[in-house]
Amino acid sequence: MSKLPNISTSIFTVMSKMAAEHNAINLSQGFPNFPVDERLTDIVAKLAKENVHQYTPMSGYPPLLSKIAVLIQNSYQRTVQPETELLVTAGATQGIFTTITALVKNNDEVIILDPSYDCYEAPVLLSNATPIRVALNDDYTPNWEIIEKACTTKTKMIIINNPHNPTGKILTESDFEALEMLLEKYPDIVLLSDEVYEYITFEEKHISAHTREKLLNRCVMVSSFGKSFHVTGWKIGYLVAPDYLMKEIKKVHQFLVFSVNSICQMAISAYLDLVSTAAIGELYQEKRDYFRQLLKDSRFELMPCEGTYFQVVSYAAISNENDVAFCKRLIIEHGVAAIPISTFYADGKDLKLIRFCFAKDNATLEEAARRLCVI
Amino acid sequence: MSKLPNISTSIFTVMSKMAAEHNAINLSQGFPNFPVDERLTDIVAKLAKENVHQYTPMSGYPPLLSKIAVLIQNSYQRTVQPETELLVTAGATQGIFTTITALVKNNDEVIILDPSYDCYEAPVLLSNATPIRVALNDDYTPNWEIIEKACTTKTKMIIINNPHNPTGKILTESDFEALEMLLEKYPDIVLLSDEVYEYITFEEKHISAHTREKLLNRCVMVSSFGKSFHVTGWKIGYLVAPDYLMKEIKKVHQFLVFSVNSICQMAISAYLDLVSTAAIGELYQEKRDYFRQLLKDSRFELMPCEGTYFQVVSYAAISNENDVAFCKRLIIEHGVAAIPISTFYADGKDLKLIRFCFAKDNATLEEAARRLCVI
Ligand SMILES: CSCCC(=O)C(=O)O
Ligand SMILES: CSCCC(=O)C(=O)O
Repeated sequence: MSKLPNISTSIFTVMSKMAAEHNAINLSQGFPNFPVDERLTDIVAKLAKENVHQYTPMSGYPPLLSKIAVLIQNSYQRTVQPETELLVTAGATQGIFTTITALVKNNDEVIILDPSYDCYEAPVLLSNATPIRVALNDDYTPNWEIIEKACTTKTKMIIINNPHNPTGKILTESDFEALEMLLEKYPDIVLLSDEVYEYITFEEKHISAHTREKLLNRCVMVSSFGKSFHVTGWKIGYLVAPDYLMKEIKKVHQFLVFSVNSICQMAISAYLDLVSTAAIGELYQEKRDYFRQLLKDSRFELMPCEGTYFQVVSYAAISNENDVAFCKRLIIEHGVAAIPISTFYADGKDLKLIRFCFAKDNATLEEAARRLCVI
Repeated sequence: MSKLPNISTSIFTVMSKMAAEHNAINLSQGFPNFPVDERLTDIVAKLAKENVHQYTPMSGYPPLLSKIAVLIQNSYQRTVQPETELLVTAGATQGIFTTITALVKNNDEVIILDPSYDCYEAPVLLSNATPIRVALNDDYTPNWEIIEKACTTKTKMIIINNPHNPTGKILTESDFEALEMLLEKYPDIVLLSDEVYEYITFEEKHISAHTREKLLNRCVMVSSFGKSFHVTGWKIGYLVAPDYLMKEIKKVHQFLVFSVNSICQMAISAYLDLVSTAAIGELYQEKRDYFRQLLKDSRFELMPCEGTYFQVVSYAAISNENDVAFCKRLIIEHGVAAIPISTFYADGKDLKLIRFCFAKDNATLEEAARRLCVI
């Protein structure tokens, strides 16, 4: 008997593989296809010849931890202690798995919003806990009343994802006020805040959960240099958490992976001196606007996109197929790969929506749009 | 309440930190201090400027998987299927954690030999299973009779470590025959074989568990390019397992880390075309012999060392202190860091033994020996 009987190959693997097989333009799995900043790759090339190839300390390369603290100070005017409140992880996924494994116990309940990115459930199930799915409103805002109704004495954790993959929604000041009011009634609930797209927001300002006075003492925030610096293959992320939670997370991290790739940690550490995070949002805002402009005259209906590098569209005017079937046909007949939104719902709800990744060079976006506009 | 109430900072972190604080020669945590092969670092420097920075597939970079299959063919004349029987992991530790998490269930028992490396217990405990510690014989050979007595209907897994850290012991043909006889009686037991030092053996030939006809269908073998190619910081390891077990392991891997550092996977893939694994054993055999020669006239008694890059010594002729106290004094008063062997025992048994890592350049070994010979 499998410990995860209902888990199969992730949709990102399925779609990227199918895209490759059919030589389609891959706007499915989220990763950039444009060159990485030369300053960063120059750093790697130079570091390769230096003494950078042995274990870094368990919590992360110390200068990188200090630079992350500076980044947080500059971005949010919050002071964190590098030694006790930060942990470098092998990508955000490992940070999320490790946090859940460290903090969620037998018979606990974990609230996961629906739709959601796909990596939250497995560690909850492996911890013998129960994922409690709570639907977002139709406009993808959280319904805090329903979330509160889902809270019980067994609720150990609420997982939020802000900016939200796949919908691009970001949480507002009033969302946070509602969340804070709710959590005041439940002193033992931990907030796991997946903010891997924290620097990819557009008109609205991103509010980071760990900067909220009322949340920081129970919040584990997850971020990703892979997303921020266009190096998804490097698998370097980090956690911000209060001391008493971080102690438990490090106990698991120490025996789950021990430490994280040394040369890429060191490269990011050096690069953080050179780079401005403002440029990240600007780059992707331009790409979002360009991609939306290119699809303006297509039969796809564009949903709002406040953050992330994903654009959700409705194909209801084009086809009645379910979204998985539509995505497969889109690859085979039209040479463009997308992700069906039903796969983000626990019950596979089909809303005739699909997700495109616009973290691509302009030529790729143009060719994809050309193909999409004739459908 | 902690899920791991009895786990504290690993001895490797404690000792490396103390070594740094006291400016001691660090022969504690196992990692090389000599330069990495220039051919490998040249590959990294060159790759850095190429398109190598996005996600590799979930199971690993496909050319690397193929090269690992070739490596296994050349080393052991065994054919494995790259797509279904291999998985690249973020270091051996992640491979071990993932395997245990995927396969060990509530109330299972897992047999761990005593003394043992420190990363096996945590994932067993986190799976709500019970670690059953079985003592090795005084000469560190496994006592298969006692191990068999420890097997019950609840036993899900036996973990072996070959070559063995910290004792350097390697398993013989007759060990494997005894193990095979034992396992025939327990068809459901999985063998987890930690072979991260598989290419670091000396007079005796290494026997890899997954190459045994009678074991390969229930064996998960863990290896580490960090150890084999002197790049412990890269955190690139791999698993070999039969299809039906690998399926379960990949389910967890997919949501635990998803994929592994791209550029270092690609570098190892290219390097595997250039390198001979025979050179690894030769290099460390020379270092072992040199280090033993240097300590010959000291008051430390040298234990046998058949594999790994660790030399265990007794200090019984020097001091009556327990081994942790002795190691601390060795750092502070004599400027050499080692690992106390008691920390590898579940009950902290103190045999007046400590472990030195000899994966160091000759100048370091000479200076360490100079300091150790005057004690
Ligand atoms: C880890 S593969 C998925 C990448 C991603 O974040 C997405 O496409 O949503
Ligand atoms: C992961 S730190 C420990 C390194 C090692 O394998 C050892 O020193 O035994």
